[in-house]
Amino acid sequence: MGNLYVALIHYPVTNRQGDIIASAVTNLDLHDIARTACTYGAKAFHVVTPLTDQTRLVETIVAHWTKGGGGRRNPKRREALSLIRIETSLAEVLAHIGAREGERPAVIATSARHRPNSMGFGPLREMIHRGSRPCLLLFGTAWGLSEALVATADYVLEPVNGPADYNHLSVRSAAAIVLDRLMGRR
Amino acid sequence: MGNLYVALIHYPVTNRQGDIIASAVTNLDLHDIARTACTYGAKAFHVVTPLTDQTRLVETIVAHWTKGGGGRRNPKRREALSLIRIETSLAEVLAHIGAREGERPAVIATSARHRPNSMGFGPLREMIHRGSRPCLLLFGTAWGLSEALVATADYVLEPVNGPADYNHLSVRSAAAIVLDRLMGRR
Repeated sequence: MGNLYVALIHYPVTNRQGDIIASAVTNLDLHDIARTACTYGAKAFHVVTPLTDQTRLVETIVAHWTKGGGGRRNPKRREALSLIRIETSLAEVLAHIGAREGERPAVIATSARHRPNSMGFGPLREMIHRGSRPCLLLFGTAWGLSEALVATADYVLEPVNGPADYNHLSVRSAAAIVLDRLMGRR
Repeated sequence: MGNLYVALIHYPVTNRQGDIIASAVTNLDLHDIARTACTYGAKAFHVVTPLTDQTRLVETIVAHWTKGGGGRRNPKRREALSLIRIETSLAEVLAHIGAREGERPAVIATSARHRPNSMGFGPLREMIHRGSRPCLLLFGTAWGLSEALVATADYVLEPVNGPADYNHLSVRSAAAIVLDRLMGRR
């Protein structure tokens, strides 16, 4: 069923004005995207932040659900949050996946903006299901991944568009839709 | 592009033990599902709670984003949250849609559980796009819509399943995936 990894990037991302920032971690991002990753069979969910206090926050939340009372009361939530790996940079994510898989994954950036070289959902779905190489999907918090980070990716996925003009999904919703389109039963 | 309404039900829903409860409103449910509804061209997003303090909370949040500082700073968020209608019961939702459309909508309950009479995504997508009748999708908070409420629906949609056994998406993620499957460009 493919060899897929998911990463949620808190730095480098942009704010409303287009400046590069490190965004704050949102508790429900961890829960929602972990549950989505678990539903669609991703092998890990990497939460990327270089800020020490944010790393500690994520560790505390994850420990509550994987080792503490939360997970005892709700084993399904424990199963999902067990997928979370905390990393300080994309380079660290790539190193960890590389060590686990024996090869560097193909890196696919997601974006709310169409680009001339965007990859369609169909071709990416095929690439993942051929399973010849691990794939890492990057999702950006705040106003999205920095252009410099997008430029380092092997592919940029086409945006999720509905029938309307509106194109401002939360990262939680976008991750759910993207994983369903790539990994959902057809 | 179809004639679709979305409702998020806070009563009657079940808790972990299967008791009927009124759940608390979650701020990010409002934002995420409003943004999803806007993306996929839903005509309104009905937030249903019989609790007066919860109704007031939703009114305060919506006013901040539709009339207050939030919406001035972020007009896209204003556009999404303008879709929210606060109602105290499903009957009230049906009355409002009936008055607007001149007919009662078809009511489709969503559920994380497969049922013998579940409707597939394909047939529901076709029904919506024929556009002969308004359709209202019900999403349950907490552990899901009460069985009594599901029994009053005209249809029950099949659950969202990934390739894995895990089937515990957040309502925010489930709503995103369901609307993409029903209304997304193909």
